[in-house]
Amino acid sequence: MTYQELSQEELLKIKAELVDEYEKFKARGLKLDMSRGKPSSEQLDLSMDILDPAYIADAKAQDGVDCRNYGVPLGLPECRELFGELLGVPARNIIVCGNSSLNIMYDYIAQCMVSGSGAEPWMLQGKIKFLCPAPGYDRHFKVLESFGIEMITVPMLEDGPDMDVIDELIKDPSVKGMFCVPKYSNPEGKVFSPAVVRRMAGLKPAAKDFRVIWDNAYFVHDLYDTAPELLNIFEACREFGSEDMFIEVASTSKITFPGAGVSVIAASDNNIELIKKRMGVQIICHDKLNQLRHVRYFKNADGIKAHMKRHAAILRPKFQAVLEKFDSEFSGLGIARWTEPQGGYFISLDVLDGCAKRVVSLCKDAGVVLTGAGAAFPYGKDPKDSNIRIAPTYPSVEELSLALELLCICVKLAAAEKLTAQK
Amino acid sequence: MTYQELSQEELLKIKAELVDEYEKFKARGLKLDMSRGKPSSEQLDLSMDILDPAYIADAKAQDGVDCRNYGVPLGLPECRELFGELLGVPARNIIVCGNSSLNIMYDYIAQCMVSGSGAEPWMLQGKIKFLCPAPGYDRHFKVLESFGIEMITVPMLEDGPDMDVIDELIKDPSVKGMFCVPKYSNPEGKVFSPAVVRRMAGLKPAAKDFRVIWDNAYFVHDLYDTAPELLNIFEACREFGSEDMFIEVASTSKITFPGAGVSVIAASDNNIELIKKRMGVQIICHDKLNQLRHVRYFKNADGIKAHMKRHAAILRPKFQAVLEKFDSEFSGLGIARWTEPQGGYFISLDVLDGCAKRVVSLCKDAGVVLTGAGAAFPYGKDPKDSNIRIAPTYPSVEELSLALELLCICVKLAAAEKLTAQK
Repeated sequence: MTYQELSQEELLKIKAELVDEYEKFKARGLKLDMSRGKPSSEQLDLSMDILDPAYIADAKAQDGVDCRNYGVPLGLPECRELFGELLGVPARNIIVCGNSSLNIMYDYIAQCMVSGSGAEPWMLQGKIKFLCPAPGYDRHFKVLESFGIEMITVPMLEDGPDMDVIDELIKDPSVKGMFCVPKYSNPEGKVFSPAVVRRMAGLKPAAKDFRVIWDNAYFVHDLYDTAPELLNIFEACREFGSEDMFIEVASTSKITFPGAGVSVIAASDNNIELIKKRMGVQIICHDKLNQLRHVRYFKNADGIKAHMKRHAAILRPKFQAVLEKFDSEFSGLGIARWTEPQGGYFISLDVLDGCAKRVVSLCKDAGVVLTGAGAAFPYGKDPKDSNIRIAPTYPSVEELSLALELLCICVKLAAAEKLTAQK
Repeated sequence: MTYQELSQEELLKIKAELVDEYEKFKARGLKLDMSRGKPSSEQLDLSMDILDPAYIADAKAQDGVDCRNYGVPLGLPECRELFGELLGVPARNIIVCGNSSLNIMYDYIAQCMVSGSGAEPWMLQGKIKFLCPAPGYDRHFKVLESFGIEMITVPMLEDGPDMDVIDELIKDPSVKGMFCVPKYSNPEGKVFSPAVVRRMAGLKPAAKDFRVIWDNAYFVHDLYDTAPELLNIFEACREFGSEDMFIEVASTSKITFPGAGVSVIAASDNNIELIKKRMGVQIICHDKLNQLRHVRYFKNADGIKAHMKRHAAILRPKFQAVLEKFDSEFSGLGIARWTEPQGGYFISLDVLDGCAKRVVSLCKDAGVVLTGAGAAFPYGKDPKDSNIRIAPTYPSVEELSLALELLCICVKLAAAEKLTAQK
């Protein structure tokens, strides 16, 4: 029977039991942080060998460049080759940057504000807007907010953002672009279907300077061998000649080390030319020693894929622990829905409408920090107050089990509180 | 006797001899690049030990943070401490960033364009201007040019920029700031005197959002133990309460590895707060493993200073080779003046007015690439066409001697050409 079908009396009894369980948990003085999608220590250990100086003792790249010195602003040719292979684009369409794809995206938007993306600088075009498939990645929204770009929420369907809604919204020429995570979307772990990718490629926005930031953060981050493929956006663009509309980014933050990995841009010839021009003013070069480490350690795309299987072996039990727990605790109660991602770093949990903030707050008071409720929505405002991003990667399986135990109590308690207050 | 005092006949004879010498050089098929201020391989070798993984095998920072993972956007506390010690500011006024101080400066200007520095965004204030002490660093000028900021040249005197000129120019509220390299200025190697630093600190610009980018690129890059001290700008500011006007940057690009070092911002509490806010949106963290490497390898400011003595030992003979050659070739001829820096990466050579482009072109045709003539001036335009930036650090002493031989021939030849054409 669902909570909604229970009598007030039954609910009050359940609520009393839950309060009791909750207070016991609180007394244990837990201290767990599940707020961000961070790799665990065990995952970081997988990449320690890359730090072996033998990989860079001969610091000469294939073309003879000394990677210890200035130069090669677009990245080592062999490193561009490696990521070109992984992303399915020619090496000339890849730029290897520093450690942060977020920084690439921020810079790209900053550049559009100041210099534009083919038309007037965005900053001089008055109010401009971006489409935000939501739930989405909070840091994308923060970037847009920081530049004063108005965010318009687009609902996420099972196979990607609602393309019908997007088709309507882009008739407004002040709508200048869109952020998305096409594979294992943050936080739902959804993969854009081939049909959605094709519709994205075929978009006909009124704004000629419309740009989609294709944040392929989890491009090789599969949990299972049966993982779904993401259609190559640049291949899809060919039919429409829309390559200039897409800026793809990726990084090794969750392949080797967050903060000490490399990030890449994949873009059309035209966009590479523009970014190259800006980058030539902005920086002399990125960390080529780190690029060389990555290339020599992984050798090729297969090397990275093999490495990702080792990550998956660590992550699978954690994702499974969450899904099994949700299944056993919530099935049939009518108080929670959740996604079952095949990769990425998150699971999205929808609790009873109006309860997400309460759940996060209850967990926090008992020592488990979750991502703030609403974080996955523009301006941090979840219209239904129901979405909670679960980040199961960082804690150990034991810690995770404890945190899940608490979380499930809190989800039920918040639901019981709400329903009893309503009756 | 100076070239100017010679008869046309004497000059023509000299010219003929020089053409002869030049053609012989050309036939040798040299291929040397002296265009940029790059460390030599020998210098890079000095820092190879920093790559020993033993320094980061225990990747836990002093406060227990795992440097392999996300977090600590302002940089490791111990690394902020290290650079605070070197720059004479409290650690809380330091942010440790990625590999590039140029990138910090670019970002800072970008931020001022989009969000302003205490007033309206610069981009919405119409035409704005920057003061450019010249000769100066070409990449500073390129940043300003890329943002469409008008550059006003300020003459460099012996002890820094002409402060009387600056005092006049800053009465214009559209003058928003100034770039400078206060120690071993690029390319002249001049050090701002204490009086100039004090006058800088005491500037009273009409624009309340005026900012000085204090590019302390060569802060520990002395060639001699008797090197002049640069007055600490933030100490100088105390008297005037003008700390917010200055953004100081530095890096280890020429201490460890260009591209694989760390860079820092030193700024007032207010500015750190603003930069922190922006940086929190822009990037999750910089490369903390590299920060940890630097801290553990150098230990403290003395460690860096000792390391710089090893650099100086390699660089001194190169600087001396240039100065001795110029002295022996040009003394008394009236066709060249040059600076005698006590540190930094450059020597500035002034040839006969109207001859710099010709000299650079002659050298290039004979296989020696110098920095483009005019590069040290806003818009790449040297009004006198006389300045050439000499970058003696990268070639070996042998290569440098060859290049100098050629350069001296070209300087004389260009002078002889000009003077014979005039007579």
